[in-house]
Amino acid sequence: MTNQTPQVQLLLTGNEIMSGDTVDSNSAMIARRLDELGIGIYRKITVGDDPSLLKRELAAITAEADLVIVNGGLGPTVDDLTAEILASVAGVDLEQHPEAVAHLEQWCAGRNLALNDANLKQAMLPAGCTIVDNPIGSAVGFEMTVNRCRVICTPGVPSELAKMLDIILAGLAAGRDSPVERDILRLQTFGLGESSAQQIIADNIPDWPAEVELGFRAGAPQMEIKLSVNSAAALPARNRCRQQLEQLFGDHILGEGDTVLAERVLELLRERGETLTTAESCTGGLIASMLTRIAGSSAGFHAGFVTYANHIKHTVLGVPLADLETHGAVSEAVVRAMALGALEKSGADHAIAVSGVAGPGGGSEEKPVGTVWLAWGSPDTLRTRCLYWPVERGLFQTMIAAAGLDMIRRSLLGIDQEPRYFQQRRVRQSQDESNQTSRAG
Amino acid sequence: MTNQTPQVQLLLTGNEIMSGDTVDSNSAMIARRLDELGIGIYRKITVGDDPSLLKRELAAITAEADLVIVNGGLGPTVDDLTAEILASVAGVDLEQHPEAVAHLEQWCAGRNLALNDANLKQAMLPAGCTIVDNPIGSAVGFEMTVNRCRVICTPGVPSELAKMLDIILAGLAAGRDSPVERDILRLQTFGLGESSAQQIIADNIPDWPAEVELGFRAGAPQMEIKLSVNSAAALPARNRCRQQLEQLFGDHILGEGDTVLAERVLELLRERGETLTTAESCTGGLIASMLTRIAGSSAGFHAGFVTYANHIKHTVLGVPLADLETHGAVSEAVVRAMALGALEKSGADHAIAVSGVAGPGGGSEEKPVGTVWLAWGSPDTLRTRCLYWPVERGLFQTMIAAAGLDMIRRSLLGIDQEPRYFQQRRVRQSQDESNQTSRAG
Repeated sequence: MTNQTPQVQLLLTGNEIMSGDTVDSNSAMIARRLDELGIGIYRKITVGDDPSLLKRELAAITAEADLVIVNGGLGPTVDDLTAEILASVAGVDLEQHPEAVAHLEQWCAGRNLALNDANLKQAMLPAGCTIVDNPIGSAVGFEMTVNRCRVICTPGVPSELAKMLDIILAGLAAGRDSPVERDILRLQTFGLGESSAQQIIADNIPDWPAEVELGFRAGAPQMEIKLSVNSAAALPARNRCRQQLEQLFGDHILGEGDTVLAERVLELLRERGETLTTAESCTGGLIASMLTRIAGSSAGFHAGFVTYANHIKHTVLGVPLADLETHGAVSEAVVRAMALGALEKSGADHAIAVSGVAGPGGGSEEKPVGTVWLAWGSPDTLRTRCLYWPVERGLFQTMIAAAGLDMIRRSLLGIDQEPRYFQQRRVRQSQDESNQTSRAG
Repeated sequence: MTNQTPQVQLLLTGNEIMSGDTVDSNSAMIARRLDELGIGIYRKITVGDDPSLLKRELAAITAEADLVIVNGGLGPTVDDLTAEILASVAGVDLEQHPEAVAHLEQWCAGRNLALNDANLKQAMLPAGCTIVDNPIGSAVGFEMTVNRCRVICTPGVPSELAKMLDIILAGLAAGRDSPVERDILRLQTFGLGESSAQQIIADNIPDWPAEVELGFRAGAPQMEIKLSVNSAAALPARNRCRQQLEQLFGDHILGEGDTVLAERVLELLRERGETLTTAESCTGGLIASMLTRIAGSSAGFHAGFVTYANHIKHTVLGVPLADLETHGAVSEAVVRAMALGALEKSGADHAIAVSGVAGPGGGSEEKPVGTVWLAWGSPDTLRTRCLYWPVERGLFQTMIAAAGLDMIRRSLLGIDQEPRYFQQRRVRQSQDESNQTSRAG
C-alpha cells in the first residue's frame, strides 16, 4: 500500500443487526480508528446471514475497493459464513489452518475446555489466507487479497474487534511508504452545543486554516471537538487553533482525549486532598452515580444524600420546615440548606445540591417543568443559581447533574467567568421573557 | 402492494454516520418497526454525502427492490442531497411543493420565526412526489415510485423518524389486500442470559411450534424475549409457548412490552401504598438513579443514602464500628446494618442495601473484585446474600443495582423461588470452587 489513500469499504453481516435487535456500533468503531490514519470509509453494506447475497456483495466490493473490512460471521455456528463466502469469491477451498488450530487449542486449554468440532469449524479458512491474531477470543481473524482488493475478516464481538483493530491499524500504518503523520486532537467540552460552538468559531476565527479539519461529536452531557491534521507541518497551525479555542471558550473545555467530567472533578479534588458530597432531589442519585462510576472515586467522594421527598430534606439534611413551606422545595433557600446539611453530615469540603422539576408532571405557572435550583461550593463560599432547562426527564437529569459537577470543577479551578449555559438557560422572570428564552434555546 | 412480502432495502446517508461520530440507531428503529408487519430488510447501504455515489446506489436499489426507505439528507444545508438525487434518478425536476411550503410556514409561525431561503430549500422536492407529514420537524418526508420501486425519504433526526414511521407503517398495513395478522409479544426479563434461556427452552420445549418465531434481544440489565406469529391462527400456539415460558422461568419475567425493572418495582409499591429506601456503597447511587429516572417515582421512593466511605456508613446509617472493623465493609453484618439504618432514617417500608468490590482495585484473596453483599426487605423480614459477579466496573454496578431491585420485586410479589443468578453467581467458597464458577459463567 502506498501513501495514496485506499478506497475502503465495510461489509457487515449478521441477522441480529439486520433485525434491529442489535444496534451496530462496530462500524463506528472501525471508522473512528481508520480516521487515525486519515482513511475514510467510502461505502458500507450490511446484510443478514444470507450466503448468496453475501457472495454477491463481496464479489462486487472486491471488484472496486482497495480494502474491505468484513465484520461478523466468524463464530462456530452454521450461520457464520464469512470464511466460506470469502473462499468461494476467491475461488479457493476451505482448509484447516494450522495456526488457527494452535490458537484454538491454546484458547481452550486456558479455559480447561476440550476442543470440539464446533470450535474446529473456526479453523477452516480459505486456502492461502493469513491469520490476524485475536488476543481475547476463540475466532482468529484472517485476510487475503482477491481481485487486487485486500479483504480483512474480523469478529463481531466488539471487545475482540477493538483488540484486532490495534493489530490491523499497526499493519496499515507500517505498510505505507512514509510514516503516517495524521494527528487527531480531541477536546471534551461541557455546556456548549454543536451549532453554537460552530457559530462562535465562524464569528471569531474567520481565517480558520484549511489544513486543520474541525469536527464535532455531540453527546449528552459532553460534546467532543476534534482538530485533525494530515501532516506534522500542520501541527503549529493546529496548536494556534487550539489556543484560539481556549481563548474563546476554554472554561468549557474539560480536557483532552476521553476525559469525563466526573473524572476531572475527582482529579481536581485529589490534587487538593479534598472531598465532595451531594444532596440530590430531582437528579435522584445520578450525580453520585456519575462520580462512583469512576474507579478510585472513594478518595474524593464519601457520602451522597438522595432527599427526594420534602420531609426527608428536613429529617436527613436539616432543611428548615419553614423554608420548605414558605419557598417550596424548588427554591434557593432549600438548595442552600440542603448543601449545608450535606456538608455538615458528611464532613466534606465541597457540596452540590439540586432541587428542580424534572417533569413530565409537577410543574406550575411559577415553576414550570425544567426549573431547577443549584447550590455548590464550601460552607463559606456557597453559591446558588436557578436554571430553566425544559427537556425530556432523563436528559434533564443528565444535563443538570453535569451542570452541578461543572460548577464544582469551575470553583476548584478558580474560574470566575459564568458558563454560557447560565445565559442560555436562565430562569424565566416573566411569561414574556420565558418566550424569548425558549425561542433562543 | 399485495400480501406478498416486499423486498425492502435501506439507504442511509450522512457523513456523520460514515465517520463514526454518530452511531446509526435509525436503521435498527426502522427494522424493528417493519418487523411489526413481518417485513424484513434485505440489504442496507450506508454512504456519505456524496452525490454521485448516492445516485449510483439509489439507481441500483430501485432496479431490484420493491421498497426503499432513504434516511437522512432532508435538512436545509447544501450537504442535504436526498431530494436532488431522487429527482435525478427518477428523471424529473425539483419543484417547490405547495404542501411542503405550507408545512414550513406553519412550522415557522409556531416558533415565531421568519421563513428563510434555507428553509425553503426543504420544499424543493421531486416533481410528482407525495408528502409524508412530519408532525414535529421542519423537513417533510416524501415518496414516489421509481422503476416500480417505492422510494420513501425520511429525516435523520431520530424523534422525527419515529413519528414518521407511525404514518408509513399505517400506510403499508392499509395497502395490503388483507389485514396484517403479524403479532409480536415482547417479554422483558432480568437475570437470564440469552444462551442459558435458549438452552432451557431447547431442553424443555423440544416441540416448539414452527409458527412461533423466537427471538432474543440482549441488553444490560434486561433481556427481551420476542414471540412473533404471522397469522391470528397461530395465536393459541403462541399463548401456549408463553405459558410454558412462565412455567420455566416466570419468576424472571418482569412484564410485557417496554417494562423496565425499576418501573415494575414502583408499580408494585404503589399498589400497596408502600415505599422503598436505598443504602448504597459499591453501586454509588445507581439504584436511586434507576428509580428516580421513572416519572412519578416520588410516590414510592423518598430517600436514598450513598454511604461510600466506612465512616459514613457509621455516622449516617449507624452501622456499628465494631462490625466494620471485625467483618469489613463488604460483609453480611454491615449490609444488614446499612439496610436497618436506612429504614430507620427514612421511615420506608422496604430497603435495599449493597456493599461490594466493584474493582478494578480493592480486591483481596478473601473478597476478590466482583464480591458483593446484598440485603433487602422490611425490618422484620430482612434477607441477605453474597454474590460473585466479576465483570467490568460499570456493568457490575448495573447488574448489582438491578439484582437489588429484582429482589424487592420478588419479595413484593411473594416469589420464594431463588433466582437462577443466585446459583450462577454464588460467592466462591474456596479457590477450587471459584475456578468452576468462572468456567460456568
